Parts: sequence; C-alpha cells; structure tokens
Amino acid sequence: MSPIHFNAQGSASWVDRVKAFMPIFEWAPQYDQPTLVRDLVAAAIVTIMLIPQSLAYALLAGLPAEVGLYASVAPLVLYAIFGTSRALAVGPVAVVSLMTAAVIGEHAAVGTHAYWEIAITLAFLSGVILIVLGLFRLGFLANFLSHPVISGFITASGLLIAASQVKTILGVTAGGHHFVEMLSQLVTQLPSAHALSIGVGVFTTAFLFWVRKGLKPLLKRLGMKEAPADIVAKTGPVAAIALTTIATWAFDWQAKGLKIVGEVPQGLPPFSLPSLDMGLWQSLLVPALLISVVGFVESVSVGQTLAAKRRQRIVPDQELIALGASNVSSAFSGGFPVTGGFSRSVVNFDAGAQTPAAGVFTAGGILVASLLLTPALYFLPKATLAATIIVAVLSLVDLGVLKRTWAYSKSDFTAVLTTILVTLGAGVEMGLICGVGVSLALFLFRTSRPHIAEVGLVEGTEHFRNVARHTVQVDPKVLSLRVDESLYFANARALEDSVNAAVANRAGIAHVVLQCSAVNAIDASALESLEAIDARLKGAHIKLHLSEVKGPVMDKLKETEFIHDLSGHVFLTHFQAFETLRQ
Amino acid sequence: MSPIHFNAQGSASWVDRVKAFMPIFEWAPQYDQPTLVRDLVAAAIVTIMLIPQSLAYALLAGLPAEVGLYASVAPLVLYAIFGTSRALAVGPVAVVSLMTAAVIGEHAAVGTHAYWEIAITLAFLSGVILIVLGLFRLGFLANFLSHPVISGFITASGLLIAASQVKTILGVTAGGHHFVEMLSQLVTQLPSAHALSIGVGVFTTAFLFWVRKGLKPLLKRLGMKEAPADIVAKTGPVAAIALTTIATWAFDWQAKGLKIVGEVPQGLPPFSLPSLDMGLWQSLLVPALLISVVGFVESVSVGQTLAAKRRQRIVPDQELIALGASNVSSAFSGGFPVTGGFSRSVVNFDAGAQTPAAGVFTAGGILVASLLLTPALYFLPKATLAATIIVAVLSLVDLGVLKRTWAYSKSDFTAVLTTILVTLGAGVEMGLICGVGVSLALFLFRTSRPHIAEVGLVEGTEHFRNVARHTVQVDPKVLSLRVDESLYFANARALEDSVNAAVANRAGIAHVVLQCSAVNAIDASALESLEAIDARLKGAHIKLHLSEVKGPVMDKLKETEFIHDLSGHVFLTHFQAFETLRQ
Repeated sequence: MSPIHFNAQGSASWVDRVKAFMPIFEWAPQYDQPTLVRDLVAAAIVTIMLIPQSLAYALLAGLPAEVGLYASVAPLVLYAIFGTSRALAVGPVAVVSLMTAAVIGEHAAVGTHAYWEIAITLAFLSGVILIVLGLFRLGFLANFLSHPVISGFITASGLLIAASQVKTILGVTAGGHHFVEMLSQLVTQLPSAHALSIGVGVFTTAFLFWVRKGLKPLLKRLGMKEAPADIVAKTGPVAAIALTTIATWAFDWQAKGLKIVGEVPQGLPPFSLPSLDMGLWQSLLVPALLISVVGFVESVSVGQTLAAKRRQRIVPDQELIALGASNVSSAFSGGFPVTGGFSRSVVNFDAGAQTPAAGVFTAGGILVASLLLTPALYFLPKATLAATIIVAVLSLVDLGVLKRTWAYSKSDFTAVLTTILVTLGAGVEMGLICGVGVSLALFLFRTSRPHIAEVGLVEGTEHFRNVARHTVQVDPKVLSLRVDESLYFANARALEDSVNAAVANRAGIAHVVLQCSAVNAIDASALESLEAIDARLKGAHIKLHLSEVKGPVMDKLKETEFIHDLSGHVFLTHFQAFETLRQ
Repeated sequence: MSPIHFNAQGSASWVDRVKAFMPIFEWAPQYDQPTLVRDLVAAAIVTIMLIPQSLAYALLAGLPAEVGLYASVAPLVLYAIFGTSRALAVGPVAVVSLMTAAVIGEHAAVGTHAYWEIAITLAFLSGVILIVLGLFRLGFLANFLSHPVISGFITASGLLIAASQVKTILGVTAGGHHFVEMLSQLVTQLPSAHALSIGVGVFTTAFLFWVRKGLKPLLKRLGMKEAPADIVAKTGPVAAIALTTIATWAFDWQAKGLKIVGEVPQGLPPFSLPSLDMGLWQSLLVPALLISVVGFVESVSVGQTLAAKRRQRIVPDQELIALGASNVSSAFSGGFPVTGGFSRSVVNFDAGAQTPAAGVFTAGGILVASLLLTPALYFLPKATLAATIIVAVLSLVDLGVLKRTWAYSKSDFTAVLTTILVTLGAGVEMGLICGVGVSLALFLFRTSRPHIAEVGLVEGTEHFRNVARHTVQVDPKVLSLRVDESLYFANARALEDSVNAAVANRAGIAHVVLQCSAVNAIDASALESLEAIDARLKGAHIKLHLSEVKGPVMDKLKETEFIHDLSGHVFLTHFQAFETLRQ
C-alpha cells in the first residue's frame, strides 16, 4: 500500500509523497480491459440503484431532490483518486442526511436558498475537518465511538427517519421535535390522511419487502444464479419508482392530491461556494465534526468489511483524506454531506467492481441522468420515495443490540440504551454526545475501582491465582496481592485503601508482595500512593515488595526515590518472590 | 469508626444510624479533664492565628473584613459534630477565597450588598452539593483530580493571590483579568505607588519571613523547646498586626494616605439567608461544584496527613457531610465558603488538640473577638493583611512540581503545565476544568494505544517476558503476544492491527496465543474485535488461543459465542499453552 512509502522517513522523494496521498497511482497503471468491463457493469448497476437513493436522501435532508444527484457526481470522482477501498461507493446516506436536516433546521427554513447554502457550508466544513484529521493522523479518535454506541445511534436514527417518512406516506404535515412527539402528532393527524398517498406508500413498501424476501428465492427457483438474483432483487426500488410514476402519469393522480416530485431542473451540477459567515461556521463546527465522525465510522466499517473479503486493506487515515476531499467537492458542486454507503457499496462489490474507476463510471451515469432523465421524474410520487427510505432504514434498526449487550456487559448496555433514548428524545447530536460521554464515564468509573485479588500458588506450577477462585497454596507470612489495573490518579487512593484493609485483617504478616503483571502504567499520583503505602507498612514492620513489573513501567520507576527507599525488593517473577520470602 | 455501623446492612437501629452520621457521639462520651485542658490550649493558639487570617481572606474574597470572623464561628461547631478528623480546623482559606472572588466578580461589584448575598448563596450551594455527594458516597469523584493537577492549581492560585495583594501594598487600584495583565498593570501603576503603604507592606513581609526562618532557631538557641518555639513562630502575623496597628494609631498614618481596615461592626454573626433566585443558582452551580471539590480535596489531604501521624483514620464520605454542614451553617450566619485549612490545622495538631471540641472552643474565641476586639482593628493597615496573605500563599507555590513530573512522566507534566498556564491566563475555574480534562484525555489516549509485546520463556522458569528486553526462548510455530491493557472500544481496533501486523511478518506460524494477564476487562467492542481476529487467522490456517484469562473476565467470556467458536483453547497458564502447542 502506498502510505507505507510515506511512513518510510526521509527516503521518499516528493513524487512518492504526493503519490502516497493518491492511491489512484497504485491501481491505474495496471488498469486493463477485463477490469474495465467489470467496473462498467458494476457502475451501471450502482447508477440505477443510486438515482432513487440520491433523490430520497436529498428530500430527507430537507433539500430539493436534484441536490441528491449533484452530491453523487464529484464526490465519487474525488474518492476514486484518494480512497483506499476498491469497492466503496460514496454519496448521500440516510443517517448523515438526517443529521444534516437536524442541524440546518435550527438555522433556516426548508425550501429556502439559505437552507441549501448552509447544507453546502456544512459539507465544506465537514470535508475540511476530515482532511485535517487525516493529515494529523487522528483517525484513531473515531475509536472512542464504541460499537454499541454506533449500533444504538444508527438504530435510533433509523426509527427517527422511518417516523419522519410516515408523514409523507400519510400525506400530512406533522412535525415534532422528538420521537414520541412525532408519533403522537402522526396519530392525531391520522383523520386527515390522504388515502391515495397511503395506497401508493403501502403498496411500495409491501412490494419492496417482497422483493427483498420473496423475489430472490423465486428467481433462484426459476434457475437464476445466486449473484445475479441478488442484484436483480436490489434493483427493486427502481421498479417501484417506474411503476408508481407511470401509474401517476396515466391516472392523473397528482390532480387527486398525490404529492409528486414535480419539476427537477435539467443540467450539470452547479458551481457553488460555501458561506463565509464566521458566526455560521462557529455554530456549525460541532455538528460538522459529529457528521464527519459518524460518516467516517460508517464508511470505514463498510470499507473494512469488503476489503477483508478480498484480503485487501484500507488505510483509515487516508480514508479521512478521501472522504474529506469528497465532501469539499460536494460543497463546490451544489451538494451536501456525503459518505460511503453500506447497501450501494455491497452492490458495487457484488456486481464485481474491481477498482475505484467503477465510482468514476457511476458518477458519469448520474451525470447523464441529471442531464437527461430528470423530466421523467416529474410524476414520481413522494410517497414512493418515502417508502424506499423506510424499507432501507428499517434494515438498520437493530434493537437486538440491547439484548446482546445486556447479556454480556451492563456497561455496554447502559451506553446503548442512553444513546437510543437520548437520540430519540433529544435528537441526533445530543444522542451521540451522550453516548460517547456515558461510555467514557463508565470506563473511567470501572478503572477507578480496581479489582485487587489475593493470590496463591497453583500446586505443581509457578503460577498464582485468586485464592477465592482456585485451590492454591498461601503462606501466613507473605501476603500476595495481584493488582488488576493500571495505577493512575483515579484509583491511587483506592489502592491505598485496599492494601490497608488487606493488611488490617491479618496478623503475622511480614511481607506484602504486589504482583504487577496487570499494571501497565504508574503515574505520578499512584507513585505517591505507593510511597504512602510503603511508609505505612514500614511503621507496622511489614516490608513491601513488587513482582513482575513490566519493562516500560520499571524503566520509569528506576529513576524514582520510591524504588531506592523501598523497604523490600523487586522480583522478576512472583514465584521467585514467594519462594524467597516464605523461608 | 462509626460509619462502619452504618455499612452493616439492616442490623443497625435508627439511633445507630443517626450516630453514624455524627462522629461526635464517638469521642464526647469519653471526654475528660486532661483532654479538656489540651483542647483549650490548642483553641487559644488557633484563635490568635485565625483572627488575622479570617480578616485577610475575607478581604481577598472581596468581602468586608468582619465576614471572615462570621465564617469562623458556626462552621467550626458543625464540623465538630459531623467531622471525622480530630485536628482539622475549618474556616476561610486562601484558594477557596480566591475562587469565591472570581465567581462573584462576574455577578456583582465589590462592596455591594448583592456581592455579599451571592457569597452567602455560594456557601449554601457549595454546602448542599457537598452533603449530596456525601449521602450518595460520591467522595471518590474527587480522585479524578490528580495530584499533579492539584499541585499545579494551588501553585497558580498562589501566584494569582500574591499578585493581587501586591496592589494593596503599592496602594494602587490595578486590575487585570489574568496574571500577565495583572503584572503589567502593576508595573504601569508603579509611579503612583504610595511610599508609606510600601514601607508597611515590605516591613511586614520581611518581618514575617524572618519569623518563619530566623525566629524559631533563635528561640531554640535561647533554650526554648521545639514545639513551643514552633508555635511562637507561627503567631508572627499577630505580632505584625499589633506592631503596625499601634504605629498607625500613634503616628496618624491614615491621615498620610495609608489605607486601614476602618470600622468593623461589633456583634454576633448575623442571621442570613441565601438568595432564592433560581437563575442565580443555575449560574453558580458549576462554580459551587468546583469550589466544593477543591475545598474537599484540600481538606481531606490535610486531614489524612494529620490522622496518619496518630494512626487515626478519616472517612472521606463523612467528611463531605461535615464540610457540607459547615458551609450551610456559614451561609446562615453571614459567612462565605469555608474548608479545612492547612496551616491552622497543623498548628491545632501541634498545639495538642485531642478532639474536635478544640474547634468549638476556637469558635468561642472568635465569637468573643467579634464582640469585643473589633474596635482594636480600626487602625490595622490593609497593607499588613496583604503582606500576611503573600507570605502565606507563597508557601503554597511549588514550581518544582514541573521539574519532578517532567522527570517522571510527560503526561503528568503536560497536565500540570496546562493547569498552571490556563489558571494564570484564563482564571481558576477554567484552569481546573482544563487540568482535569487534559489529565483524563491523556489517560484515555494512553489506554487507546495498548503496548503489545511478543514474549518468550525465561530459561529455567515458567515465566514469559518481552523478547526485546530479555534473553528468552521462542518457538517458530507459536507466537506469544502479551496484551498490556484492558480491551475496550478505544483500543479494540488497535489490537486488530497489532495482531495482523505481528502475523504478517512471520511465516510458519500455526498458533497465536494472547497472554491476557494484564487484560482486566473485555467489553462488547473488544469482543467483536477478537471475533474478527479469530476469523481472519482461521482464514490463514492459524489457531487463536488465550492464556491466563482472569476470573472476572472468563466469567463473562464463558457466555459468549466467541469462546465456543474459538479456533484454539483457553489455557490456565501461558507456560501450559507454550508447552502444549510447541509439540
């Protein structure tokens, strides 16, 4: 992978350095005709799938439908140049569109030019943030978003999106600031629901579910192979769109009150510039960061899953730069925040995309669509698009994560539940922040109360285990304590209390040995606590010893007064300490 | 200690439960005449020392001098009832007074009645917060304030206080929002400095330093014993006050422009009530929390140091309740936030205080002083009080902490430096928050990049150490990796990368064994990463094994699919794994 050249300090020329930032130089030179054919086929399939998705997610974000097409051209080309995944397809995605709508809704009204300008600015800021994170190799920061928090966040976002689309299917204008309010408004507006709209929405939803569950087995029974059957099944939304659009045109349903997409301007994506209002930038900074991180995490996990299947690798820090460039390009071509989408990337992969060139061809396809196809979308019912969104996002909803984390870890469960409830109750931004906050707080809380076990020798070995769990050998003179945590400020005092308590319960002890096999660091606060423990034990004529201190920890301790003044010794193994001191 | 009764679930009657919250029931029944005498002597000495301190810290907090006396009566009585330390002396202290001034300065002008009311409200809120923390046994939260952050904060506060007092000595009215601005304003105002004021201030400062360093050796040379010489040396501020007050009266210095304390109302502490303005409460909540935590940490560390000397113990959660009650009582008697002070507690201890009754007697002494002595304070120069503050706080300044932490731990050094610079540059509140934030962030950062060592067998033992540090035995088929961190969301991906990298560099490996002796927990995210590692290794025909998994971790893993589907085994000791797999 080219970023490895970049890591080789000093030896790389500037050409190599530039190339390291552009993985296109890796695959483009070997590009040949068979690869071209496979990429073109994949691109054609993804284009067909991406058109309705782009329109639908633009509407979800509160933007005109054509903006979804604009956001699906330049970003794909930029990703092809800078991205390290061979199969990732970028563009508008559900969760990021929802977050975009939530942010902009605080600043402008849907349908205004200001709204669109803020979307453009958000894409620009998000892109700049991603590039900066990538240049400073800060991709690891995304790791602080734990898997359970991500699952909870996506599940809650899926529910929010589905609820928001139900109103389009009902043909009403319900609002609501959180999930329960949205549901209750939908229920109260039910009497004024529009029957034809419901008909189209329910038909499309049922059709799409049938395509997912029933069509593929049917095609296979009819003799089609696994892979093509899969791809045909995934073009279901296009069929639904064609069917309902034609029906609306033929039966003049828009005259009966069915809401349609209407006129979508024909033409190339426009050149656009982000707002330079610094006050706006300031208020968009945190939302843009959250959108960046969520988009990055979603994109990287799709990319890694697909790369692993072909034994390829993706480079997270380079992905930041690629997604950043994609978003900046989206801002300059009338688009809104984009990232790597799950379903379209899987289709791209399954359809045989070999290189990011497939993305460039997809961009070409979308470009043709936005030049020629938009008049055909005039009669497309909005209820159809709402149904495609509902079916897509309900597959993201995974309430099983609550059960799984409850069974395995109450901390993880708490983090998921908090994320889901806060996201549903107070919005996506607050939900994400609280999820991360709670998971970090629970981690800190756990490490602040270290598990300290008295250990004894497992008969016939040199190994020590917890006296409460195993049949082990102990000595009345020697107290062996295994400290199950790195020692730092938050648990330094707890260590003092534990050692005091352990010694207070036992007469006749002459030696306390702290087995440090699980102590990965000792900070200045913990060092003071160890000094205090040693001083207190000295007063009671008990010696303090350490065993199995790790290399990096011992390197630091060697320089301290504590280790010079220590009443006892430091032993390489706990067995040596036990054998020496029991005599 | 009585809180132990409280912990014994169910068996304690309600009388015992009440007693558990009032350690006074522990010592009062055994109170006898020799104890009385020793407590009275200590109280007399502490009273003499506390009068100037109370006045000075009230002025530092921007309050009338007599408020300092009010804050030194009721709180001492309440602490005597609820406190677990036998020698702690509560009242106004330097750092808390500085924080008080910083908070109130944002809401009202010095000298107004509103200013005093906010001080009272702050004491009330701070007291309530402390009591709530105590009732919910949340004293451990204070542990998140690391020793280096506390040292840095107190050092920076000492410098800020000293700088603020220099202006009183110069007799000018310089302001400034941060340290550098304060110093530059002092320099520009130097030409308008008041010579007599400087004379009194410099004389007092020099006198107090001489008393500290020179008087005690002199008294000992004159045949006085260590302990009384020490106490006499600590009454220096009283002598300075008497000398300069008499001189001001005799030479009519206030007519020459020397600023004096002036009329201090005679009388009992007034009954007062906190403001009930909820908007004010809301804006005081975070500052009150910070003041509570700083006061608690300062007080507990003094209490623990003194208790250890007499082999007594203090109970931090009960201390929260005691300090909370003290602050609430301060609010109802015209005072401001108080806590246990270092120097006065040491004097109390050295003078032989046996029980908190000494505090009650001190309160009596202060009460007498505020009834009778205040007219004598009329001619007390403010410059004298400023000098006593400067000498007191400069002993808190410990810039050596920078050098010590630099030598031991760069993380701790970063936390100290941040705390000092932000406190000096942006104030006490921001300094404390940034200090805690940076120390937590550095801890999380460290744990997010786990140290993973390849280990080998130490010849002649069953112990494994890092191949890079020790001469050890390895096997080409078996790769032993010791994971030096608990596995959680922030480092789960780093673990995947490390194992991938370790395997990629080596051909002929059939087994990877993760030695989990330092893994104290595995959360749901890390479990998914372990599953991913196992799946990837399976693809390469390598088996994954675990060894030395701790009891609490194994309890959880037992329930998971991961452990059932694991390609390899879980071994009790790493030695067993190595011996079994190398064959």
